[in-house]
Amino acid sequence: MSEVVEKAKAAQEAAARMAQLTTEDKNAALETMAKALLERMDELLKANEEDMVREKEKGLPSSLLDRLKLTEARIRDIAEGIRQVIALPDPVGETLASFTRPNGMRIEQVRVPLGVIGMIYEARPNVTADAAALCLKTGNAVVLRGGSSALCSNRTMVRILRDALAGTKVPPDALQLIEDPSRASVDEMLKLNGLLDVVIPRGGASLIQTVVQNATVPVIETGAGICHTYIDASAKPEMAESIAWNAKMQRPSVCNAMETLLVHEAYANKHLPALLARFHEAGVEIRGCGKTRDLFDKAIPATDKDYATEYNDYILNVKVVSGLEEALEHIRRFGTKHSECIVTENEENAQRFLNEVDAAAVYHNVSTRFTDGFEFGFGAEIGISTQKLHARGPMGLPALTSTKYRITGSGQIRQ
Amino acid sequence: MSEVVEKAKAAQEAAARMAQLTTEDKNAALETMAKALLERMDELLKANEEDMVREKEKGLPSSLLDRLKLTEARIRDIAEGIRQVIALPDPVGETLASFTRPNGMRIEQVRVPLGVIGMIYEARPNVTADAAALCLKTGNAVVLRGGSSALCSNRTMVRILRDALAGTKVPPDALQLIEDPSRASVDEMLKLNGLLDVVIPRGGASLIQTVVQNATVPVIETGAGICHTYIDASAKPEMAESIAWNAKMQRPSVCNAMETLLVHEAYANKHLPALLARFHEAGVEIRGCGKTRDLFDKAIPATDKDYATEYNDYILNVKVVSGLEEALEHIRRFGTKHSECIVTENEENAQRFLNEVDAAAVYHNVSTRFTDGFEFGFGAEIGISTQKLHARGPMGLPALTSTKYRITGSGQIRQ
Repeated sequence: MSEVVEKAKAAQEAAARMAQLTTEDKNAALETMAKALLERMDELLKANEEDMVREKEKGLPSSLLDRLKLTEARIRDIAEGIRQVIALPDPVGETLASFTRPNGMRIEQVRVPLGVIGMIYEARPNVTADAAALCLKTGNAVVLRGGSSALCSNRTMVRILRDALAGTKVPPDALQLIEDPSRASVDEMLKLNGLLDVVIPRGGASLIQTVVQNATVPVIETGAGICHTYIDASAKPEMAESIAWNAKMQRPSVCNAMETLLVHEAYANKHLPALLARFHEAGVEIRGCGKTRDLFDKAIPATDKDYATEYNDYILNVKVVSGLEEALEHIRRFGTKHSECIVTENEENAQRFLNEVDAAAVYHNVSTRFTDGFEFGFGAEIGISTQKLHARGPMGLPALTSTKYRITGSGQIRQ
Repeated sequence: MSEVVEKAKAAQEAAARMAQLTTEDKNAALETMAKALLERMDELLKANEEDMVREKEKGLPSSLLDRLKLTEARIRDIAEGIRQVIALPDPVGETLASFTRPNGMRIEQVRVPLGVIGMIYEARPNVTADAAALCLKTGNAVVLRGGSSALCSNRTMVRILRDALAGTKVPPDALQLIEDPSRASVDEMLKLNGLLDVVIPRGGASLIQTVVQNATVPVIETGAGICHTYIDASAKPEMAESIAWNAKMQRPSVCNAMETLLVHEAYANKHLPALLARFHEAGVEIRGCGKTRDLFDKAIPATDKDYATEYNDYILNVKVVSGLEEALEHIRRFGTKHSECIVTENEENAQRFLNEVDAAAVYHNVSTRFTDGFEFGFGAEIGISTQKLHARGPMGLPALTSTKYRITGSGQIRQ
């Protein structure tokens, strides 16, 4: 039996027990996990140092090294993150519907855990603890498959967390880490129908595509965001500039950051040159349509490939459009159904945008950067779903649950 | 461009318009569809006759010929089915949550259509009209791929329905039928990410497995049911017999019928021989464990393969178990998470069964035959989901929707 199958089977056995735990049992286990990370911080820092040295030698870019690095402060944040999950309400057991049929049988629809969740993710070791806390809180078992660059960190963290669970009602086997760093272990997870109930990929577009293209297990697709901000003719210039600036600059590396700015031509003629000059001075490369380049000569030409790229970087596509219709058309063609914004004072256009744009989150006069579990008030999230099935947008704890119908009666049979 | 891509693209364009229609617009279109089927009944009967003659010549079994056959009465039922969908509440536009964040931005979560639904199904031509009505009612476009044996019937039905739509607000392109009868058209649909938002298979286990194994588009898995009835030691014999009989005999060909009867040994010793004699006399083949065969000598041996088979026929597996624990274990191993029942007067055992069995519908003292949209009071259903993501159990109209967040504000940016 392979490592993946063996650990998934152990997780499945643990999941049956997890589903029967009380919220108190699960919270007590999470608190033990948080404490253990703080108590065994040195061990974790040492393991992380191994990863850092090896990856530095391998030439991992400094931005990725920074994501990989654990510090005392970061471990405190991770433990604090687990405690925030403790504070969230437990959706499991909630009765969503309850009714009696004319034949007297009573039907209740209740929330239950999904079962065993497979998480496939990249370098950041904090995802290991986050995902563990979210999955265990919702009564699930979880099989983690982190990136190879964080293997020592992940292995040590999971050892610490499993040791902590040994003294609680949560079976340690509910938390599994696949240590095989090869692509084969990912491929194996993606076909584990019957053992994994869902696979959630968290990482770059290429990881997500690998999962979507190869999984036979149900997938929740997360993340990739080519987000647009459309500045309509009637937008207030100050607000439009502030929202566009925030959407691009506050944190360009994340999925809800703006990649393409669409601007009504009437607005563009008056205000676009100054806005683009400001972006340019801040170090943003501008890739524009013909009209944009006419208005701002430091822009280089934008191609369809650019419009279809999630840069996550200081690069911005800019397109001047004839109006709302062309903006909607562009978003239909290039959007990834993540987060889209219109800045306008025209209520009719705002409503059309909110109604017609097909995305997890559509914004009127608000920056797209708010598409986030904490910003929405849901607390920690396992990811942001960009698919339409099961969960869409920031996924709170209920996204990690399913439901079942419980029917009770007194001998009812179907006529 | 292939037929599949061309029709899926047309459906996607239509879907954008569908999402903006009012309930009245959609209901008016459905009524026009129902009327057209009644008015053009002769055309449809003639097309169906072609299918019947060809399939009879090909040697299609009579049970499948019966499923394929349309009659005046059946077409009236189909039209009536569309009218029942008109009467159901429209979930689209429903506000599921609505709140204001501390920064003043307002967040609403609203129900929206899924987009374009791919339906892959087998012989019965009534599915064509059912699926069309359910998908259009929920503001979706639908791409139908029915079985080749019903091709003339489906083609004519879809022509009639599209002609009817031409006079309504629903664009006829929202309803597409793939006429290519080859397996290639199914394979193509299964990979149409970006054009199809979901694929729902409806048919036998082999069709469903083909879809699950090959789709990169999200799937809602439906149908296959290996359902168990467990008779506990304390069950009232009359009730137990009535429920077991109903679960097996009322309609053995359907997914919520019983395939395996599990019986507590204490109950079995007293009551099993008489119950099995009754089944046997009614023509049911009994495949039993050793203990069953000791109690009833007309039983033949049951294998693990039998326990894992959905017969949909007059065959019943019977296993005598030492108690609830062994029953739960058997269901964990062989169940398909569809519908499971315990018959008991022991409340503790009932609660354990309801809590611990992982299935879409778990029953206490009620026949599993009730797992059905109409029986649950949801009205017509597109299928019964046996997966845990998105929808589980009988799928009412909300299962054909997604949600989106609409966020409105006055220039909020993220700090």
